[in-house]
Amino acid sequence: MSIFGAHKVIDCDLHNELPALKALYPYLPDYWVDYCNESAFVGPDVNDYPKGAPTTARPETTPPGGGPPGSDLGLLRTQALDAWNAEFGILNCAYRVSSVHNQDLAAALATAINRWQIDEWLAKEPRLRASLVVASQNPLLAAEEIDRSGQHPGFVQVVLPVRSEAPYGNRRYDPIYAAAVRHNLVVGIQYGGAPGHPSTPSGWALTYLEEQAGMAAVFQSQVISMVIEGVFDRFPTLRVALIEGGFTWLPSLMWRIDKEWKGLRHNTPWVRRLPSEYMREHMRLTIQPIDGPANPVHLRQIIDQIDSDAMLMFATDYPHWRFDQPTDALPVALEEPLLTKILSENARAFYQLG
Amino acid sequence: MSIFGAHKVIDCDLHNELPALKALYPYLPDYWVDYCNESAFVGPDVNDYPKGAPTTARPETTPPGGGPPGSDLGLLRTQALDAWNAEFGILNCAYRVSSVHNQDLAAALATAINRWQIDEWLAKEPRLRASLVVASQNPLLAAEEIDRSGQHPGFVQVVLPVRSEAPYGNRRYDPIYAAAVRHNLVVGIQYGGAPGHPSTPSGWALTYLEEQAGMAAVFQSQVISMVIEGVFDRFPTLRVALIEGGFTWLPSLMWRIDKEWKGLRHNTPWVRRLPSEYMREHMRLTIQPIDGPANPVHLRQIIDQIDSDAMLMFATDYPHWRFDQPTDALPVALEEPLLTKILSENARAFYQLG
Repeated sequence: MSIFGAHKVIDCDLHNELPALKALYPYLPDYWVDYCNESAFVGPDVNDYPKGAPTTARPETTPPGGGPPGSDLGLLRTQALDAWNAEFGILNCAYRVSSVHNQDLAAALATAINRWQIDEWLAKEPRLRASLVVASQNPLLAAEEIDRSGQHPGFVQVVLPVRSEAPYGNRRYDPIYAAAVRHNLVVGIQYGGAPGHPSTPSGWALTYLEEQAGMAAVFQSQVISMVIEGVFDRFPTLRVALIEGGFTWLPSLMWRIDKEWKGLRHNTPWVRRLPSEYMREHMRLTIQPIDGPANPVHLRQIIDQIDSDAMLMFATDYPHWRFDQPTDALPVALEEPLLTKILSENARAFYQLG
Repeated sequence: MSIFGAHKVIDCDLHNELPALKALYPYLPDYWVDYCNESAFVGPDVNDYPKGAPTTARPETTPPGGGPPGSDLGLLRTQALDAWNAEFGILNCAYRVSSVHNQDLAAALATAINRWQIDEWLAKEPRLRASLVVASQNPLLAAEEIDRSGQHPGFVQVVLPVRSEAPYGNRRYDPIYAAAVRHNLVVGIQYGGAPGHPSTPSGWALTYLEEQAGMAAVFQSQVISMVIEGVFDRFPTLRVALIEGGFTWLPSLMWRIDKEWKGLRHNTPWVRRLPSEYMREHMRLTIQPIDGPANPVHLRQIIDQIDSDAMLMFATDYPHWRFDQPTDALPVALEEPLLTKILSENARAFYQLG
């Protein structure tokens, strides 16, 4: 029993962390093992969640035997799946091969980490589903990996970092979307990434706090790009999950993009419906971290303003520390059937589970 | 009488457009006039509002005698000041000297356009106040111009484009803030700009629609930067107006930045209060263009979620075409004293008018 009583949840954002680069050696060709041993490479140079930042991990999630939080299946089982009475949990591995400049190495690491996910996570825990890691800086190599590993029934998603080399509406990413559709996989866009671009459209912010608070603005620009550059017109069955980006900015973005579209739609004739309709049809958002208003009435207003009961999906963001009390996971009282939809049924339909 | 009956308004966003580069020649040293005549320079290479885009100008604002919309004082008087029963109107000249790579030319243009504003607008219409144009890409030159022209009582603001070379919280901009405070001027951050950076944190968007819809995200990143990098701790009397950026994203941003600050505030110890408190104290927003929800109940919820009756300031954004009917300027029924605050008193207090 969790705070949701008899409700089973589908937790749409669990993080499985690689304990160390060496854990991938059994899955890497000798060439790349030799390369890793002789070079300066120790893993992608990305710090979406710095190891000592309090928001990165709940204290109890550090494995007693060593390794980073999120690297221990046993702890994830008890602290996330069991604690929340989860029917399914979706792993979003944040190993950022997209930031590795050697794209051949990046692609080899992606293949390796996906095989590692099969052996160490999917094979050992039937409630888990996982997300394919791909070298998204090279969409052709990424599509090859989706074709290679996407056959495994445990994978339900391709995960991409929200910070990218080009806006995700750009046609350079079409091979990824085509492959995702081909294998009936969701494309999950996740907090973080380090493509080399500054973290804001005005250049580099100085502090991690700015980067973290500003990530919601990066999500907004990606949503605009995907809808307006016509991704969903080119791939009418594509489904996109927005993961760890918050959702209270969603109504404002829907209003703004609809309004601007009305004035300028003749420039983008392929966008045939209101942008917000594409969003409601093709996009879903995980609820944690909630950009939480202190007043639950305000949170409820935002949920109503979204004007869809299908878009929000429960998530704990385990092992990140984004709320203190279990009751803060969804800090507003919701009536049925909305509660059940958010806790499980929206994700079940979107990820086509069970 | 306007749609607001006997209410007088303070219109915080009117655009006075330069009819042509030659209009600045009387105010430019011979050296720069010669330079303009012999070089390829025809003005800043910026297209925040392309001349043919329907959102750029209401049809009736084009002067019958020629020149761009917003360049004719007579039309601005009747179509904006008289039509809305304005007690004051604040000009925000969007001549983007900040995008001129020759910074000496940019500074000379700034001085010239500010003298042109005095002669052609402030001297001729007592209801008008104006905003200093400065070469913000070089804050030392910008501060010199603020010291030079900021003495004129008609200037109430220094205007900066929201798209900038560095986030506005960066200390490189301190000379501008120090000069603004010295002359008791508001710093106005306005839609647009072309600093050379891509328009999104993930690179270049392809369409103007994306740029326009995405500008709200640029505003958000600038607000985060200014609060978290400590601008208001270094300049406790600084006032910042956010112009043409919408406001329905404000509650979500306040919630998010407050939440992230609680987890990471030890990294930015100079930020001593909730970020949203800095925003409510130091920042104001113009209401047009409203990122309009179709449902006025939702708009009212957003206004309440801001949790301050002091932050919104009336504006028409003349001559831009951002609403069709006069009643759409503020498409929600508001009770007193909130209505009067938004229509005039918030701006009167912030700009210290009359």
